[in-house]
Amino acid sequence: MQSRLHHHVLVLGTVLAALVASTAMASPESTAAALAKKAQDTSLALKIATDLTTEIGARLYGSESEKRAADWAVKRFKKYGFDKVWMESFPVERGWKRGLETASVTSPSPQNLVITALGGSVPTPEEGIEAEIALFKTIDAMLEQPEGSLKGKIAVVTQAMVIGGYSKISGAIRSKGPSEAARRGAIAFLMRSAGTDNDRMAHTGGTSYLPEIPRIPAAALSVPDAQQLDRLSERFDNIRIKLVLTPEELGTVTSQNVIAEITGSERPDEIVLLGAHLDSWDLGTGAIDDGAGVGIVMAAGKLIGDLPNPPKRTIRVVLFGAEEIGIIGGQFYADSHADELANHIVATEADAGQGPVQFMNIGLENTLDPSLATIRNALQPLGVKAGRSKSSGGPDIGPMHSKGVPAIGLSMFTDDYFDLHHTSNDTIDKIKPERINQSAAAFVVTAYLASELGGYYRIQP
Amino acid sequence: MQSRLHHHVLVLGTVLAALVASTAMASPESTAAALAKKAQDTSLALKIATDLTTEIGARLYGSESEKRAADWAVKRFKKYGFDKVWMESFPVERGWKRGLETASVTSPSPQNLVITALGGSVPTPEEGIEAEIALFKTIDAMLEQPEGSLKGKIAVVTQAMVIGGYSKISGAIRSKGPSEAARRGAIAFLMRSAGTDNDRMAHTGGTSYLPEIPRIPAAALSVPDAQQLDRLSERFDNIRIKLVLTPEELGTVTSQNVIAEITGSERPDEIVLLGAHLDSWDLGTGAIDDGAGVGIVMAAGKLIGDLPNPPKRTIRVVLFGAEEIGIIGGQFYADSHADELANHIVATEADAGQGPVQFMNIGLENTLDPSLATIRNALQPLGVKAGRSKSSGGPDIGPMHSKGVPAIGLSMFTDDYFDLHHTSNDTIDKIKPERINQSAAAFVVTAYLASELGGYYRIQP
Repeated sequence: MQSRLHHHVLVLGTVLAALVASTAMASPESTAAALAKKAQDTSLALKIATDLTTEIGARLYGSESEKRAADWAVKRFKKYGFDKVWMESFPVERGWKRGLETASVTSPSPQNLVITALGGSVPTPEEGIEAEIALFKTIDAMLEQPEGSLKGKIAVVTQAMVIGGYSKISGAIRSKGPSEAARRGAIAFLMRSAGTDNDRMAHTGGTSYLPEIPRIPAAALSVPDAQQLDRLSERFDNIRIKLVLTPEELGTVTSQNVIAEITGSERPDEIVLLGAHLDSWDLGTGAIDDGAGVGIVMAAGKLIGDLPNPPKRTIRVVLFGAEEIGIIGGQFYADSHADELANHIVATEADAGQGPVQFMNIGLENTLDPSLATIRNALQPLGVKAGRSKSSGGPDIGPMHSKGVPAIGLSMFTDDYFDLHHTSNDTIDKIKPERINQSAAAFVVTAYLASELGGYYRIQP
Repeated sequence: MQSRLHHHVLVLGTVLAALVASTAMASPESTAAALAKKAQDTSLALKIATDLTTEIGARLYGSESEKRAADWAVKRFKKYGFDKVWMESFPVERGWKRGLETASVTSPSPQNLVITALGGSVPTPEEGIEAEIALFKTIDAMLEQPEGSLKGKIAVVTQAMVIGGYSKISGAIRSKGPSEAARRGAIAFLMRSAGTDNDRMAHTGGTSYLPEIPRIPAAALSVPDAQQLDRLSERFDNIRIKLVLTPEELGTVTSQNVIAEITGSERPDEIVLLGAHLDSWDLGTGAIDDGAGVGIVMAAGKLIGDLPNPPKRTIRVVLFGAEEIGIIGGQFYADSHADELANHIVATEADAGQGPVQFMNIGLENTLDPSLATIRNALQPLGVKAGRSKSSGGPDIGPMHSKGVPAIGLSMFTDDYFDLHHTSNDTIDKIKPERINQSAAAFVVTAYLASELGGYYRIQP
């Protein structure tokens, strides 16, 4: 009896398992789970990021390298079987190219400093400038100085970036510091890098000049060099620095967004948009910022395209150009695609490094859309929690989001992001397979379910 | 009863404690323990290393900066109350000064490489050289090539340094690689940095040229850049690199050892020698290599000098010059002090970073000297274990040790040493107070007990 009962139970079990399996295979959730597994098993995102950063290297906005990267991406999208692949070019006004950049303390004790020009900085004269510094431990301390008070000096701001990313302050030091220093008479501006590492590498990043104020050369010091100047200024008066920067302003240059689609089978006009940016700063090879994102969204699109059945909606992957100098590609997309933005069901971007994705945040009107709960549930096995922040979806999604496109923000763990980004250290060896693989899994799950499920009421523009 | 007994016990305890304390104060062991505590409480070693690396910065052998550091050290020793302080100068034949150094892949995909010239490298022509590379994943693979086979190429060796420090191989790649490449016809030599980090910073270090072989420019690639070339060479043929190096050879320059003593009270002619080297490579500020060592031995000497009673033997602190280019200062000391080496009871050096000291190794004849057991016991509370390796005391102690001076090797934990040394990242922020403080404690304990206890039979020269 026991043996026969056992047999029956086994048979029943097998039948049930087969039934469950067959049902499960048909559900969006189980397909999403299979996609997540495949994203992790294949390490496809890492492979793409490795190929891009190796075969192209750095990809400064408007440069030959950025264009080569775009050509590379077109070729790769086609190889991966995307249905439509195209490029959309646009002008970028502030073309720029890094030159030599050296700095040294000349007095009281000659020593080299590690610096890098801020993106967009004007050059020094070829022979450099040499002047006494006026060191401020906070930007506020500099802003308190009256106009003209820094005449002939090199202004130095050594305020540290707060762990956790850009704040209003760290953003303002880089973007407004040079003009505010110049307004007070300074002839050059140095800031402690917006970075949280203590490596002897300076973080670049875009600066901008206010109109009608002299444009002065601007550079970032590595964190140890900023600390060195702090210590020197506590011990000596009249510290003098020599600074040589020879970047070139190139006027208007061309950048481009690369767009690729897996056409939807039931609602081809409805778009689920996955974004990342293809440009990078010029010092590293743009692995963390944003080769990882390129790998993540390209892999997510390809894996969905590889399914036996196409997705219901169209999956559109957009690799934006010229993000680093002011989200030019994202703005161009929102403007030039204004007519079809109403068809954008939801958009999200990977532009915060390798992950893992920690939270799913949303930027849309109907926060009770039942599809969101389905996505949240599907992300749970990956360790992604429901976030409480409102999200604009990512930097390049911002402009379309503010025109009404619903956004999901897959918020990534940025423990190393502000150590590496915008430095020469942003290279592929920093990316851990398990981290980027989880991110690719989270993005493919989100994109696939967004293509299969309903809802996502538009935000009010 | 209970209360009265309690009172008696308390009185007895107090009396005993006072007795123990008074006895303890008189013993070398208790004085050593007090010195260890003081080394840790005052953070003096870190303070000295901070002052040196801030006020002077990098200290390349034979440079103006190394001389400024020597002057600084003389002043500091005097301020700290050492009895005798002097400088001993010597010539260094291979004076050298770093120039510009840039490299880039020119084909198949233009991208910058992070390199640094090896110390002593000859320059490229001013406009640089551009050539196809011949990449070898091991030095042996390059050595297997016949003479003339690398004609017109840039030889690249991407063999990784083995974790744990210099091996015969990693030493040989840097010192012999350029000449072996040139022997086979190469016009320049690039090696993966001898370093265990994955930062985008190249490690310099001395190279040398064999006579009668063309001297070719030689540089180290950062580890990520060497890996990039590995990946590129797996994907493309005919990789071309452009290399610009403009170092200057300066001929014979002058370096110096700085020597300072706390004169012994009972056996002033007998010397306990503490060494470190004052020179550093030029990229960082020489905090780990060897500002930490300077702080440790200077602090140890000062703390002993501050005791109410002078040590029995003379404590001699020697800050060697020109270590990095071939232990020139250490050799000069052994040669010029040959007459008094017999009076050197024992010598030790701090030149492996910030510590902590993990093992006490010895290089002397009488391994059963009871004083050694006393020192070992005194080091135990600091976590220092008896080592099983034979020690020459440190690089600058080597030459005098081979002439018979007994050595103690306080072997330091080098987990970060080969990540940082010889790079621009070797700066004071990398030093943790608790680590260098323990090292200073171990050195002061060892030096003090060596001055108070007997023994240390000389090694056979």
